[in-house]
Amino acid sequence: MYKLVLVRHGESTWNLENRFTGWTDVDLTPTGVEQAKNAGRLLKAEGYEFDVAYTSVLKRATRTLWHCLDEMDRTWLPVVHSWRLNERHYGALQGLNKADMAKQYGDAQVLVWRRSYDTPPPALEATDVRSERADIRYAKLQPDQIPLTECLKDTVARVMPFWNEAMAPAIQAGKRIVVAAHGNSIRALIKYLDNISDDDIVGVNIPNGIPLVYELDADLKPIRHYYLGDAEAAAKAAAAVASQGKA
Amino acid sequence: MYKLVLVRHGESTWNLENRFTGWTDVDLTPTGVEQAKNAGRLLKAEGYEFDVAYTSVLKRATRTLWHCLDEMDRTWLPVVHSWRLNERHYGALQGLNKADMAKQYGDAQVLVWRRSYDTPPPALEATDVRSERADIRYAKLQPDQIPLTECLKDTVARVMPFWNEAMAPAIQAGKRIVVAAHGNSIRALIKYLDNISDDDIVGVNIPNGIPLVYELDADLKPIRHYYLGDAEAAAKAAAAVASQGKA
Repeated sequence: MYKLVLVRHGESTWNLENRFTGWTDVDLTPTGVEQAKNAGRLLKAEGYEFDVAYTSVLKRATRTLWHCLDEMDRTWLPVVHSWRLNERHYGALQGLNKADMAKQYGDAQVLVWRRSYDTPPPALEATDVRSERADIRYAKLQPDQIPLTECLKDTVARVMPFWNEAMAPAIQAGKRIVVAAHGNSIRALIKYLDNISDDDIVGVNIPNGIPLVYELDADLKPIRHYYLGDAEAAAKAAAAVASQGKA
Repeated sequence: MYKLVLVRHGESTWNLENRFTGWTDVDLTPTGVEQAKNAGRLLKAEGYEFDVAYTSVLKRATRTLWHCLDEMDRTWLPVVHSWRLNERHYGALQGLNKADMAKQYGDAQVLVWRRSYDTPPPALEATDVRSERADIRYAKLQPDQIPLTECLKDTVARVMPFWNEAMAPAIQAGKRIVVAAHGNSIRALIKYLDNISDDDIVGVNIPNGIPLVYELDADLKPIRHYYLGDAEAAAKAAAAVASQGKA
């Protein structure tokens, strides 16, 4: 039996400001730092050990991982960054306030943008200053690999090659892995692992900074999953995520 | 022409307490954190970009690198950890105060321990609680790869395979690299690069947290080297390193 540990980054400045974030590289709030440290403390207390850590190229996930590793006294572990673990790209909504958008377009429209499986938000223009096409960290990608908007289906499509080519082989080679990533890159993974339908994934919310453990069989099929620590707190935090973006 | 950037970690708690540190995994002081951040600010101000970063498995070097990358807004860069970049192992002196040892054994003996090229300090017992033989981060090494003491010659011998097999090929493949390491692993590299004699390396001291730039030709022979920022401050900091360990 294998274990896979997933951690959504701690609260970011734009989580706090209730803004659509996507690929914008905002940092953790002091609360987010505490959540990240707490995730590390939980992992340490439960005796978790890892051989390799994966994260995105966004600092809220990287810093969450660093704080986790620091609390575990495992700052020497190898860390692999991939843009494929980035948050879903929020297109032209990046930077805008979720509640403002709900007032302007209605709760239903914002829910579609936030949670529709296959309808992306309006796209950024490639020339928009908010576009990541000129960002040095993506310099080695083909321009069409750098999204201008994404629905969750698009996120699944670009996360899966990283699962298939990096994470799954590592797990099956016996490496114990931890992933510090984002609400939607984690939802993309979970959708695949648990074979969640396009409709049902809408109701799945990932709380910030609480380690989510998947136990996997030899074929990497999930046996069960659970949050570390206080289950009630995890459920409450997930519900809070669900209620963002209401007017 | 290639550039190689070497950064000795910022002041550690045991630098501050004037204790022999070696492989003991002590953290940075607040001053050390500031030095590390300043190294990152200098690199950013001078427009340095990197493709890969190397560091040891000790947290004072890793954290120095993290602060550098953070200040450069490059937290997404790949980081490779190697025990081969660790500080020289200080044997049975690890944890002891340099000035106390100088009072007890004399300045000359401490200088031999600190700076002799081929005379190691007294060895730790493998069963000493200070030995790293049970440390999980070295679990994949052969026991005889985990030193019980080292002179600089020993450090050179275990740093060089990492230079030859990882760093030099990366540089020649066009990768721009930064190394956050330790006084003696950096001295080991410099001794090789500049072909410094066993006698002359004794007088070479590396200040904490000041980026040292080597310009290398196509065969990786040094053309010149210099510290970034205030040259006088770098010289003063190097002199301060030299004067540690006097009664």
